[in-house]
Amino acid sequence: MEDGFSLKQSRVCIVGLGLMGGSLAKALRGHVADLTGIDDDPATCRDATAQGLTRQADGKLSSAIEADVVVLATPVRTIIRLIGELGDYLRPGTLLIDLGSVKGPVVRAMNGLPVSVQAIGGHPMCGKAVSGLAHADGALYRGAPFVLCRSDRTTPDAVALARQMVAAIGAQAIEVEAAHHDRVVAVTSGLPYALAAALTLVAGVQAEDDAMIWTLAASGFRDTSRLAGSDPTMMADILQTNAPAVLDALEEAQAHLTTLVSILRSNKSEDLHATLSRAQAYRHAWEKERGNR
Amino acid sequence: MEDGFSLKQSRVCIVGLGLMGGSLAKALRGHVADLTGIDDDPATCRDATAQGLTRQADGKLSSAIEADVVVLATPVRTIIRLIGELGDYLRPGTLLIDLGSVKGPVVRAMNGLPVSVQAIGGHPMCGKAVSGLAHADGALYRGAPFVLCRSDRTTPDAVALARQMVAAIGAQAIEVEAAHHDRVVAVTSGLPYALAAALTLVAGVQAEDDAMIWTLAASGFRDTSRLAGSDPTMMADILQTNAPAVLDALEEAQAHLTTLVSILRSNKSEDLHATLSRAQAYRHAWEKERGNR
Repeated sequence: MEDGFSLKQSRVCIVGLGLMGGSLAKALRGHVADLTGIDDDPATCRDATAQGLTRQADGKLSSAIEADVVVLATPVRTIIRLIGELGDYLRPGTLLIDLGSVKGPVVRAMNGLPVSVQAIGGHPMCGKAVSGLAHADGALYRGAPFVLCRSDRTTPDAVALARQMVAAIGAQAIEVEAAHHDRVVAVTSGLPYALAAALTLVAGVQAEDDAMIWTLAASGFRDTSRLAGSDPTMMADILQTNAPAVLDALEEAQAHLTTLVSILRSNKSEDLHATLSRAQAYRHAWEKERGNR
Repeated sequence: MEDGFSLKQSRVCIVGLGLMGGSLAKALRGHVADLTGIDDDPATCRDATAQGLTRQADGKLSSAIEADVVVLATPVRTIIRLIGELGDYLRPGTLLIDLGSVKGPVVRAMNGLPVSVQAIGGHPMCGKAVSGLAHADGALYRGAPFVLCRSDRTTPDAVALARQMVAAIGAQAIEVEAAHHDRVVAVTSGLPYALAAALTLVAGVQAEDDAMIWTLAASGFRDTSRLAGSDPTMMADILQTNAPAVLDALEEAQAHLTTLVSILRSNKSEDLHATLSRAQAYRHAWEKERGNR
């Protein structure tokens, strides 16, 4: 990446043409010099090119050699593997960025790249309940926070180009240290998912013997359990690659539940009201911070 | 209540003119012979009458003596207390019904009423994040399941009249035994609320030292934590009056979380995928059953 290199002049290669990669291709159209794709699935490659999302797409990692910017839009464990494999194919100055939901292991892998490569971790905080190129949406990133985590391979030029890309797709760049990011998302994403899964398992097991469970499960159940509908492969990937922070968050949640059980069992009305009021105050604090419900 | 007594000919008195009682008054307009209200708050009584929701409203329980149908729309513990106090004021044949979220203790209190009184437990499965007469909505009950639980004071005529009322407000009557109802709602309402509160407490405590928590908390956190914003007084009432069933549900949820922790800690990928897939399958089963997401 030369000084003053701009997104507009960049040839971008997206590895992984699913919901996130496909949406990025749509969002980047007109903002870059060239768009190519790499995906294991030949049908996906054909569709991406037929729809004009990529000029060309194939299954060969070596195709990344022509790119100025390579975006890894695969599951986290695949991202980590690809960073190791891509080292040989990236020309000096190429910017490598990923879209994975966990950043510590990704940034550590980036630290092992040849010093000539520029690499920065990325995590756009958006998604959909569905997956695959067929659901790609050029507006997916609009207004979303897009976390950037520097690695040992991140120069100021790399940050500047990554920020150009984030701005081009309408997202908002937020720079955070990778370990910090992972602790936070364990609480804001991993824990909600785990609690939704636990709720759904309790209800589902009982529903096998009692049809009334699904009949009376209404909007409260719907919202609290929504994340349990997420793709298990993707979620296992996210939980396992961020296991230490997720385990910390789970243990804290269990401690709060144990306190609640103890308060309920001993029928301590004042303690119960104080605990529930505190939860409500925190929820209102978040609503105020985010300006939405 | 005489044979063939109809809702259209009934004088209805609603005790508690908050969101639920006020919405019921709006929904019942034109379907009943007379509508009066009882509420502790004089301003609420004035508003209800000024808005034409009730012909008159005051704070005296004795005003219920003129009614053919008395609806208790207060928190659960108040409902239980009022059933005991109302025994003296209800004329023979009067139908007493409540809108409380817990049914076992309510139906047990109804069983202690004079034999001349008709009484049936009710639980409309709907609500709003806000409370009070100002948010009353005549469409609140439309399409919602409305649970009916018979007591020892429930004759076939009482069931028929209660069903007329449920139909008049556009809800769908579902008859369930009270203890069964309470076990089910502990899983479908109490548990989701408790998990949302635990999530919000974990995030809120960390957010006090780390502003990034609220910045990165997105739609997954929003939905999973939504119920934590509920009124703590109302929720404490619901959890405490249904404590045995809520405690059972909480213990099952904790068992699932403990399993998840153990799987994550030992990095058992196959077990993790199987558990998360099971949760996803249950969530999809509910979506299929309810036809919504």
